Amino acid sequence: MPVADASVILTPVLDWLDLVGVAVFALSGALIAARERQTFVTMGFFALMTGVGGGTVRDLLIDAPVFWVRHPWYAAVCISMAAIVWNTPTRWWQGKLFDYADGVGLAAYSVLGAAKAMSYGLPPISATIMGIITGTVGGTIRDVIAGRPSILMRPELYVTAAALSATLCSFGMWLFDPHGVSDWLVWAVAAFAGLVLRSAAIRYNLGLPAF
Amino acid sequence: MPVADASVILTPVLDWLDLVGVAVFALSGALIAARERQTFVTMGFFALMTGVGGGTVRDLLIDAPVFWVRHPWYAAVCISMAAIVWNTPTRWWQGKLFDYADGVGLAAYSVLGAAKAMSYGLPPISATIMGIITGTVGGTIRDVIAGRPSILMRPELYVTAAALSATLCSFGMWLFDPHGVSDWLVWAVAAFAGLVLRSAAIRYNLGLPAF
Amino acid sequence: MPVADASVILTPVLDWLDLVGVAVFALSGALIAARERQTFVTMGFFALMTGVGGGTVRDLLIDAPVFWVRHPWYAAVCISMAAIVWNTPTRWWQGKLFDYADGVGLAAYSVLGAAKAMSYGLPPISATIMGIITGTVGGTIRDVIAGRPSILMRPELYVTAAALSATLCSFGMWLFDPHGVSDWLVWAVAAFAGLVLRSAAIRYNLGLPAF
Repeated sequence: MPVADASVILTPVLDWLDLVGVAVFALSGALIAARERQTFVTMGFFALMTGVGGGTVRDLLIDAPVFWVRHPWYAAVCISMAAIVWNTPTRWWQGKLFDYADGVGLAAYSVLGAAKAMSYGLPPISATIMGIITGTVGGTIRDVIAGRPSILMRPELYVTAAALSATLCSFGMWLFDPHGVSDWLVWAVAAFAGLVLRSAAIRYNLGLPAF
Repeated sequence: MPVADASVILTPVLDWLDLVGVAVFALSGALIAARERQTFVTMGFFALMTGVGGGTVRDLLIDAPVFWVRHPWYAAVCISMAAIVWNTPTRWWQGKLFDYADGVGLAAYSVLGAAKAMSYGLPPISATIMGIITGTVGGTIRDVIAGRPSILMRPELYVTAAALSATLCSFGMWLFDPHGVSDWLVWAVAAFAGLVLRSAAIRYNLGLPAF
Repeated sequence: MPVADASVILTPVLDWLDLVGVAVFALSGALIAARERQTFVTMGFFALMTGVGGGTVRDLLIDAPVFWVRHPWYAAVCISMAAIVWNTPTRWWQGKLFDYADGVGLAAYSVLGAAKAMSYGLPPISATIMGIITGTVGGTIRDVIAGRPSILMRPELYVTAAALSATLCSFGMWLFDPHGVSDWLVWAVAAFAGLVLRSAAIRYNLGLPAF
């Protein structure tokens, strides 16, 4: 069994982005379970699926060891988020503040997913797709299992924000790495751009032209 | 291609639990297809997805060879269950008897999944999650594809029974293996506890407090 | 990371079938996104999921490198199909012509999936299932995420046509390869049979007897 430790390949900054992404998405999964009046066990399972779902699909596709399986604290973070939701009123978590937090997770995860795929030697177009998958698939699984309209079908700029961050990260690393530009700079710009776009979409109800 | 034979790692008892789990879940998948008035081909595909779905996701996550792919009799069992459903009246399969049989499959599969994950060296919290996945994901795929409310969202003690069996199995093996306690004893206790909880839930309509 | 190049194992004919399958399925995914009035980004993601979904699940199950991840032109083909749909009226794509094209993709992909699985040494019954998965799972993912009734539940001969092509391919290769019969002949017969059955189902609204 190959057990490459992602923390060797990626830097502590990405590890931190990783934890932010997992925690925020786990929170959104637990909140859906709360809205559907589920039990604590189901809430924990939803938090886990939403928190680690996108990164899991990415790791399977790029043939990496699934990131959370051998590191117990990811599961612990997800279950902790479920415990927090269980013990607080849901109105604490409603409204735009949560949407912005979700936007931070989305941008962080899209950059992280694209960067990990680049570090596995994928071509930039595939790495971009891996970034989008990492950012959006956890929420898609959550919505499909809860029987809600999928995050992918929303008119707002959600997948597009993930696509912006992932594209800037993949093609930024591809273009600038040979010229000695720091990966940190590329990641920061990519995450910031996605977060700005997503925040603008939340604030001004922006959407792309639809078919 | 790594082809570790699970039957070398696990014991014949687990192999037997495995077949019980596959057969019962395949039956439940075929029954959903029957209720939806599908053809025999679709019924067979549903039986297969439900029968092997949970173990397949577990094997992908722990980086094991997918258990049924190189062993043709798993697929044969699933298609046979579809043939049985096709040739019998559905009322034979309705009512609580089938629910209890499904509970046996759930407990068996949750223990099997957790035990296999422990044998691959996962930490107990991840092995517990693998047990829950093995027990519940096949039915979740079945429900999502049939467009039914997912098994995960039911108010009854279903995921919770899987979680009980998987937790007792993982942490039991982790605690007692170093002290020479037989795995058989741990597995038997874990499966029995999950089955008792699930049976009580069926018999007395028990549920966890919901949010 | 094992990176076996599928083009070494399979022949150029299969590569060509592969591209036809990806393009046709990507088109059907983009069309669903168009009907749901989605943005271009979502349309591209739908095209990709539908185009490569079935082959992705097959590759994960048989422990092959996922075919499109390291070859950027698959993603490029999918996004191109989305661009074509975006820039043309949907009525161009409605009606039976598209159904026949989809039938070509279905037969091509079912044969390709079964042949690839045979080349990885799977038993014929598993290779048949891999063919059915390759042909139908992309469309299933598309339908589930779009919240539509799944392709698997349609009364028409859809899964059955995939099953016919996949069965003829797997068992044909298993029976005739030792006797020196060309794989090309087996593949041609298998694809042709599935296409004829699917075309007859479209033309005459054929269906299997349902339960």
